[in-house]
Amino acid sequence: MADNALARSRAAYDRIEAVDRPEIWIDLRPRAEVEAEARSLDARVAAGERLPLAGWTLAVKGNIDVAGLPTTAACPSYAYLPERDAPAVAALRAAGAVVLGTTNLDQFATGLVGTRSPYGAVRHAHSPERVSGGSSSGSAVAVALGIADLALGTDTAGSGRVPAAFNGIVGLKPTPGLVSTDGVVPACASLDCVSVFARTLAEAETALGYLAARSADPPGGPRRPGPPRIAVADPAALGDLDDGWRAAYSRAVDRLAASGAELTTIDISPFLRAAALLYDGAFVAERYTAVGAFVDEHLAKQSPDLDPTVAGIISRAGEIPAHRLFSDRARLARLSARAESALGDTDALVLPVTPGHPTLAEVAADPLGANARLGRFTNSTNLFGQCALAVPAGTVGGLPFGVMLIGRPHTEHRLLSIARRLTPSIELAVVGAHLTGQPLNPQLLALGGRFVRTTTTAPVYRLYALDTSPPKPGLVRTSGADGAAVEAEVWELPAEGLGALVASLPRPMAIGRVELSDGSAPGFLCEPAAVEGAEDITSYGGWRAYRSAGPGR
Amino acid sequence: MADNALARSRAAYDRIEAVDRPEIWIDLRPRAEVEAEARSLDARVAAGERLPLAGWTLAVKGNIDVAGLPTTAACPSYAYLPERDAPAVAALRAAGAVVLGTTNLDQFATGLVGTRSPYGAVRHAHSPERVSGGSSSGSAVAVALGIADLALGTDTAGSGRVPAAFNGIVGLKPTPGLVSTDGVVPACASLDCVSVFARTLAEAETALGYLAARSADPPGGPRRPGPPRIAVADPAALGDLDDGWRAAYSRAVDRLAASGAELTTIDISPFLRAAALLYDGAFVAERYTAVGAFVDEHLAKQSPDLDPTVAGIISRAGEIPAHRLFSDRARLARLSARAESALGDTDALVLPVTPGHPTLAEVAADPLGANARLGRFTNSTNLFGQCALAVPAGTVGGLPFGVMLIGRPHTEHRLLSIARRLTPSIELAVVGAHLTGQPLNPQLLALGGRFVRTTTTAPVYRLYALDTSPPKPGLVRTSGADGAAVEAEVWELPAEGLGALVASLPRPMAIGRVELSDGSAPGFLCEPAAVEGAEDITSYGGWRAYRSAGPGR
Repeated sequence: MADNALARSRAAYDRIEAVDRPEIWIDLRPRAEVEAEARSLDARVAAGERLPLAGWTLAVKGNIDVAGLPTTAACPSYAYLPERDAPAVAALRAAGAVVLGTTNLDQFATGLVGTRSPYGAVRHAHSPERVSGGSSSGSAVAVALGIADLALGTDTAGSGRVPAAFNGIVGLKPTPGLVSTDGVVPACASLDCVSVFARTLAEAETALGYLAARSADPPGGPRRPGPPRIAVADPAALGDLDDGWRAAYSRAVDRLAASGAELTTIDISPFLRAAALLYDGAFVAERYTAVGAFVDEHLAKQSPDLDPTVAGIISRAGEIPAHRLFSDRARLARLSARAESALGDTDALVLPVTPGHPTLAEVAADPLGANARLGRFTNSTNLFGQCALAVPAGTVGGLPFGVMLIGRPHTEHRLLSIARRLTPSIELAVVGAHLTGQPLNPQLLALGGRFVRTTTTAPVYRLYALDTSPPKPGLVRTSGADGAAVEAEVWELPAEGLGALVASLPRPMAIGRVELSDGSAPGFLCEPAAVEGAEDITSYGGWRAYRSAGPGR
Repeated sequence: MADNALARSRAAYDRIEAVDRPEIWIDLRPRAEVEAEARSLDARVAAGERLPLAGWTLAVKGNIDVAGLPTTAACPSYAYLPERDAPAVAALRAAGAVVLGTTNLDQFATGLVGTRSPYGAVRHAHSPERVSGGSSSGSAVAVALGIADLALGTDTAGSGRVPAAFNGIVGLKPTPGLVSTDGVVPACASLDCVSVFARTLAEAETALGYLAARSADPPGGPRRPGPPRIAVADPAALGDLDDGWRAAYSRAVDRLAASGAELTTIDISPFLRAAALLYDGAFVAERYTAVGAFVDEHLAKQSPDLDPTVAGIISRAGEIPAHRLFSDRARLARLSARAESALGDTDALVLPVTPGHPTLAEVAADPLGANARLGRFTNSTNLFGQCALAVPAGTVGGLPFGVMLIGRPHTEHRLLSIARRLTPSIELAVVGAHLTGQPLNPQLLALGGRFVRTTTTAPVYRLYALDTSPPKPGLVRTSGADGAAVEAEVWELPAEGLGALVASLPRPMAIGRVELSDGSAPGFLCEPAAVEGAEDITSYGGWRAYRSAGPGR
């Protein structure tokens, strides 16, 4: 892997060309410059330097400083050229990540829709009708489309979770204060968090290890033994949801229950009321503190650089009186105590990330209302000082549906651990070295596998002993009438685990759909060439019988 | 002492009549009612109940709930009748304290002058020209005039310290949150503290023991061994001060140095800047949150119940925008870090409580300016979450001068311990059982005494061996020519310690001024009757020589 970083950077730029989504980027670095940086990383790795993220491609939301690229916050005339990377960027770069560029966002990180930018609305990864979600729109879509391995976002009201849910990826919003917000254009400075987008929980967790300002809690945190206790909402308490949304939430809850988690239905009204305070209350005035003078000045000039919706929100926030902020704070303190009490002894609260997924037309028709609705479940998290994780949890109408795990401060690793119970599991048929008791069976367990049943293939295969180490059989479908049923086991793996297995598959092994006596599932096959000259062991009835038949096997 | 509580209550009402200061009180309880309560306390004590404060008289600032008395906050039309005592009042009452009534204050605790009340300006304890200080004006003057043993005040910007300093008493403002502010009309709810006035440090410390919501730190706190380290200001950095003020501050600092404390001059600018933020910044908006709607409504009606200065401050506070509060908070956080850094490894910062002591005329001429100046040193304490203690430290122009010890959160006991080094020490001449090595000498050490010198009395006394236990001599001035010089030691005691000694003096001992060969000092004498028939031991030259002269003595 001497050119690992270079290969990854090349693949990223190939993908950028292929997807043709220029609006993802505010400033995309030149390919040659990034490839030169990747070559240098490869050389350092070859020289023995430890760079655990060497070549991981990184997209950075345009309100976070990247040395040498303008920080715009999606407002061209606001731009400044930072001399230093923000600490969050620097931490990932120091581990070997390669910045591809800065991404588009709802201007000044004000919005959850992804449409409020003079650089253009960021299109959804898969649907031309729906919004991408925001404000970290470009970052989320860059990861969802497989351009970047990781992306940094920010999250004040949900900007690191809503676009993750809409585009079917993981969005991790750490506990406020855990990741430095230095070098970030403030939205509400006392609430802002730097967040991470990734396609897998493992990658998000890896990134957090570098981003966290303090050593992270041990995975899972200092928790009691036994299954996790998860707080859930009475579906009726979730309010008006899009079609299919309530059923999708219930399926996610069912999956948690099926995984053995203990569920408790709690009163989520403190969360909903605190969320309303963020939009309707005085906290929004902090946006004026950050950029209000700039916005008012450019509004007066009728500058086209300002998104009109964003500018209106920020300018009006300047008129909110301070005495309301004090009363809102007192109200928040009461709601926070009630939320804490509702959480009780649970490890996390699971909610949908949003009440629905609006179309571009719906947002255009009601820019403020459609946006406000999106924050119903996410708005309270930073007010309460909690951490949260948006996780893909199936689909609704063919588009991703995400749920959110909300946890007490500094329980990120516990949330990640619980989330693994949510990712859909996939069956895998094994016929050789991965069978129970065979040498590679521990691989399945390590990847989160769970034994489902013993069965046989349909009587259409032949089995060969391959010349591999450790010894493995090759299962080959026969076109003739000489097919036989071969002993098989069905295992269930998290999709993520199955992906990892495929990624590490050595030649001549392959995975394809295997027909079973009782259905079908992805399972181990092998390249045809591997069986040339190999011993046909079909008559043993299976790999285990063959291995136990004689010495030396 | 079967009628201890009753006697104390009677003494309080006698004193109330004698001083003729009706403006101290908003609601003074009827004498008969209080005496009945005192009788009941005496009966409970006689029955064996433990009531450590039985009969201590207590005045309560009129913005703190006392069951059955209207809570007015010095605004008649704001009044409500609380059903329960505020927890701070209840805690002292449960220990046996007797509430005399509710005291006058700067309306809504808005002011440091003591003049802003429709119930009348509270007159200074000793000066007809000067303000009493506020806002806890009535409480401070009730203690200063010897009416109440203790008084409760509140302190947001300095209201529990400024009137203590002006009237020559102790004002203890605990760490925010240590004493419950439930049942208190909020001024700035997030900054308000309940404070204590007392004539001695010991009484203030005793009261704190009952008021603190959590068990107090061990006296002195968990501190390193050795003398205290005290931060002081460069006198030039204190800004414009009243005549004599800078010298009085320097004397207090000198006294600390002479006591063996280690002094460090620090940069007090973070304290001064944070103080300015309280008056000129957005924090004052919290006063509008508390009572703004009431004030605006009554301003519109031109109600005479409102103090015009207070009403103007509160009404204008309603117009402060929330975005300024966010920027002030950020500024405060930076100043707090700088203040913490300036304090370094010191135990406390000592400052004058105020820059001066204005006359009534000066305050009338510039109500806002004169008041704002008073908070220069006190305003920052609650913003920084610190505790503070105002202590009498001499006089300027014949009126009390107070300094303030400011400490990190929850260092109240350390401040009280350091303050004992500031109270003026008094010389005491001893000639008998209190001499070094004699049985009662440990009393002096326990009261904070320090040996000064060995000397003799002037040759005008005779010494008798009294019939006491332990054996003591009686020193009697002779009117004839047979006077002699008697061995004496001079000790220095804190005024408080000397007071305690006098309080515990058994018959027939007395303390009066004793003429020494090298000056004069208060010293031990005895009642004339005690020497009738007693052995004249003058010829021994002193008590020690007499005691060592023979067996049995």
